[in-house]
Amino acid sequence: MRDEILEMGKKAREASHLMALANSNQKREFLDKMASALGLERDSIGAANRKDVEQAERKGLGKAKIDRLVVSEKVLEEMIEGLKEVSMLPDPVGEVTRMWTRPNGLQVGRMRIPLGVIGIVYESRPNVTVDAAALCIKAGNAVILRGGSEAFHSNMRLAGILRESLNQAGLPEDAVQFVETTDRQAVLDLLGLEEYVDVMIPRGGEDLIRFVTKHARMPVLKHYKGVCHVYVDSETDLEMARNICLNAKVQRPATCNAMETLLVHEAIAESFLPEMAEDFRRNGVELRGCQRTRALVPNCAAATEEDWYAEYLDLVLAVRVVPDMDEAIRHITAYGSQHTEAIVTANFERAHRFVRQVQSSLVLVNASTRFNDGFQLGLGAEIGISTSRLHAFGPMGVEELTTTKFIAFGNGQLRG
Amino acid sequence: MRDEILEMGKKAREASHLMALANSNQKREFLDKMASALGLERDSIGAANRKDVEQAERKGLGKAKIDRLVVSEKVLEEMIEGLKEVSMLPDPVGEVTRMWTRPNGLQVGRMRIPLGVIGIVYESRPNVTVDAAALCIKAGNAVILRGGSEAFHSNMRLAGILRESLNQAGLPEDAVQFVETTDRQAVLDLLGLEEYVDVMIPRGGEDLIRFVTKHARMPVLKHYKGVCHVYVDSETDLEMARNICLNAKVQRPATCNAMETLLVHEAIAESFLPEMAEDFRRNGVELRGCQRTRALVPNCAAATEEDWYAEYLDLVLAVRVVPDMDEAIRHITAYGSQHTEAIVTANFERAHRFVRQVQSSLVLVNASTRFNDGFQLGLGAEIGISTSRLHAFGPMGVEELTTTKFIAFGNGQLRG
Repeated sequence: MRDEILEMGKKAREASHLMALANSNQKREFLDKMASALGLERDSIGAANRKDVEQAERKGLGKAKIDRLVVSEKVLEEMIEGLKEVSMLPDPVGEVTRMWTRPNGLQVGRMRIPLGVIGIVYESRPNVTVDAAALCIKAGNAVILRGGSEAFHSNMRLAGILRESLNQAGLPEDAVQFVETTDRQAVLDLLGLEEYVDVMIPRGGEDLIRFVTKHARMPVLKHYKGVCHVYVDSETDLEMARNICLNAKVQRPATCNAMETLLVHEAIAESFLPEMAEDFRRNGVELRGCQRTRALVPNCAAATEEDWYAEYLDLVLAVRVVPDMDEAIRHITAYGSQHTEAIVTANFERAHRFVRQVQSSLVLVNASTRFNDGFQLGLGAEIGISTSRLHAFGPMGVEELTTTKFIAFGNGQLRG
Repeated sequence: MRDEILEMGKKAREASHLMALANSNQKREFLDKMASALGLERDSIGAANRKDVEQAERKGLGKAKIDRLVVSEKVLEEMIEGLKEVSMLPDPVGEVTRMWTRPNGLQVGRMRIPLGVIGIVYESRPNVTVDAAALCIKAGNAVILRGGSEAFHSNMRLAGILRESLNQAGLPEDAVQFVETTDRQAVLDLLGLEEYVDVMIPRGGEDLIRFVTKHARMPVLKHYKGVCHVYVDSETDLEMARNICLNAKVQRPATCNAMETLLVHEAIAESFLPEMAEDFRRNGVELRGCQRTRALVPNCAAATEEDWYAEYLDLVLAVRVVPDMDEAIRHITAYGSQHTEAIVTANFERAHRFVRQVQSSLVLVNASTRFNDGFQLGLGAEIGISTSRLHAFGPMGVEELTTTKFIAFGNGQLRG
C-alpha cells in the first residue's frame, strides 16, 4: 500500500504544477462538464450508490447514517447546482492583492497562487467527493480524496466522472485522485506524505478530526466543535432577541453553528426569560439553567459544569443569567470553542466592544449564529469551517484554498 | 518538567487573552521601555553574555558559533534600533481588511486579530529573544521562547528585561515566557502543547527545523532551505544581468536568499558567460557548470546532479545553459526549494510569464534575489521566511503573526 499512496502523492504533485497554470476557462469548462456528466450518469451513480446502501443495510447501520449515504435525486441536483455556482465564482488565482513601491524603486506585490496539493479525508456523505474536488480545482490545486468506507462504490463512481471531466477540459486527470481502498492503513500512509501533500482537511466527526490531527505530518485545517453563544444584553429589542435565539437554536439544531448556550443580562432576565422559555418549550427545546434561570423558568433542569462545555447538536440549551457583558465574555472565553457568538443589543458601545473583544471565528451583532457558513457570508461556497487560527479562521471558501507569493519588478536593483 | 511546561502553556493562554485586548499605546510603550532598558542594562547583559561566551570557549565551540553568540555593542544597538522600528509600525490588530453587504442586509467583514500563543524554538543568536518577542507582542500575541543552550544566560537576562518592560507598560508579564532549562525534553514537551500554543516557529539550521516539524502537534511556520535561481534571458541588458548575478551570489553568500544556481539562455551564453565567470573568479566564487558552460568557461568544474539541488551557503555556484525559458522554469520546479527566483530580461512577455508561472515565495524581474527579506520588501520587520504555503509564504512580518475573524452587523436577520 505504502508504494501506491506514495505514487499518488507524486502524481498529485505533478498534476498540481499543471493545475497552477490552468486558465480560468479550462477550470470553468471542467466544472460545467462535470455538472452535465452528473445528469447523464445518474443511472450508473444510482447503481453504485445502491450497492453502498444495501451493504450498509446488511451491516445494520442506523437510519441516520444510511440517510447520509443516499444519493437521492435531490442530492444529485444539489451537487449539480453547487458545481454551477463554483463555476461562476471569480478565479482567485493570479489576483494581485496589493502592490507598493519601495524607496529604491522596486515595485513589490502579492499574487494569489494555489496551495498545491490538498488531501481530504471524510466520512459518509458522497457529495463531499464532488463539492470538495470542485473547490480545490477552482483554486488551481490537485486533490487526493479519501472517503468513508460505507460510501466506497458511490465515491469511486463520482471520482471516475470527475477524472473524465478533467480530461475533457484538457486538465490533468491526476488533479483528482481517490484512494481506492477502504484499508485504514492507507489513511496513515496519506497523513505521512508531507512532501507531496501541502495541507490536509478532515471532514467528519470529532474522532476523525482528532485522528487526522494526531497523525498528519502536514498542516491540518480543522474544526473540532461549535459551542456557540448568544448574549442578550440589558438594552435590547426583546422581540428581536427572541426571534434570533429561537432561530439560532431550532432552525437546524444538529449543525455546528446552532446556539448551545444562552447568556442573559440580569436586568432583563425577568422580562425576557419566561416568554423565551415558552417559545423554546413549544419548539421542543429542553432547557438546563443556572440557579437564577431556574427561579424564573418553572420546571427547568439544573445545568451542571459539563453543560457549559456541551455541544448538544440537539434540542437542548444551557441558559445562564449574567450580571453584565464582561461576565458574558468571560463565560464565552472560558467555555466556548471560538466558533460563533452573537450579541443582541441596542447599545452602540457594547456592540462595538463585544465585536472587538470576542475572539471567535464569527462575531455577530443582532443576527442569528446560523449565518456562520460560507454561502451565507458571501464566500460563494465552503469547504469547511476552521476554528484553528492559522491560515483560515471561520468558513473556508475558494480563496482559503490559495496562498500568496511575493512578486517584485525592478530595473536592476541590487542590495547594498 | 512536563508540569512546568504545561503551566507555562496555561499562563501563556491567559496572557494571550489580555494581550488581544491591549491597545496600541500600551504595546508601543512596552517596546519603547524595552529599548531604553537594553541601554540601561548593558552591563548586566554583558555579564550574562560573557558567561555564555566563556562556557562556549571552554567547550571548544568554533569561531563562527562564538561570533553568533556575542552580544557586542553593535548587536545591542541593532536590537534597540529594531525595537524602535517595530514600535513605529502600525498596529495590525483591529484592522477591518474588507467589508461587504449581503442581500439580506447583513454587513459582513473580516477583522484582524492576534494568532494567540506563539512558540519560538531557536539556536544560538541571543538577539532573536528580543526581536521575536517584540514582533509577537506588537501583533498582540503571547510568546514562549526556547533558545539554544549556548546562549542560556544571555537569553535569561534578556527575557527578564522583557518581562519587566511588559509589567511597566501594564501588560501581563507572562506574555513573554522563557523556558528556563537547557533540557532537550522540554522542547518535546513544548511541541506537545497543541492546546495552548497556536503555532510554532523554529529558527535555525535544517536539523532543528526537521526536529520541530516532526514532533510538533501544532502547525509549524518554517523554511527549510533556499536554492535560489537567477535566469538570464536571451534579450537582456548584459551589464545589468552581470550586476544582479554578482550581487545575488557574493553580497552575503551565507544567507538563504543568495543565488545558488545560475541559468543562462543559450543565445547569449557566449557573450555573457565568459565575462560573468571572470567577475565571479575575481570575487572568489567557485563555479560548477554543465557541459555547455564548461565549453565557454575555462577550468570550470563539472556540476553533478547533486549540485542542482545544493544550497551551498558559500562562494560556490552551479551554472547551466538552457535552450529557453521553459526549460529554466522546469529546472527551477524540479530542483528548487520555492524560495526566491529572478529573471533578468528586457522582454515583456517573458517577464510576465515567468512571474505567473514560477511558484516561489518571491519571484523577481530585474532585481537581486537578496531582496527576499521582510525589511527589504517593506514589511517593516521579519520573524522568518516561510517556504511552506499555508498561512504565510515568503517573509513573515507583523501581519503574518495575526489572523482574521469574521464580523457581522445585522438588524435581526434570521436564517430561513
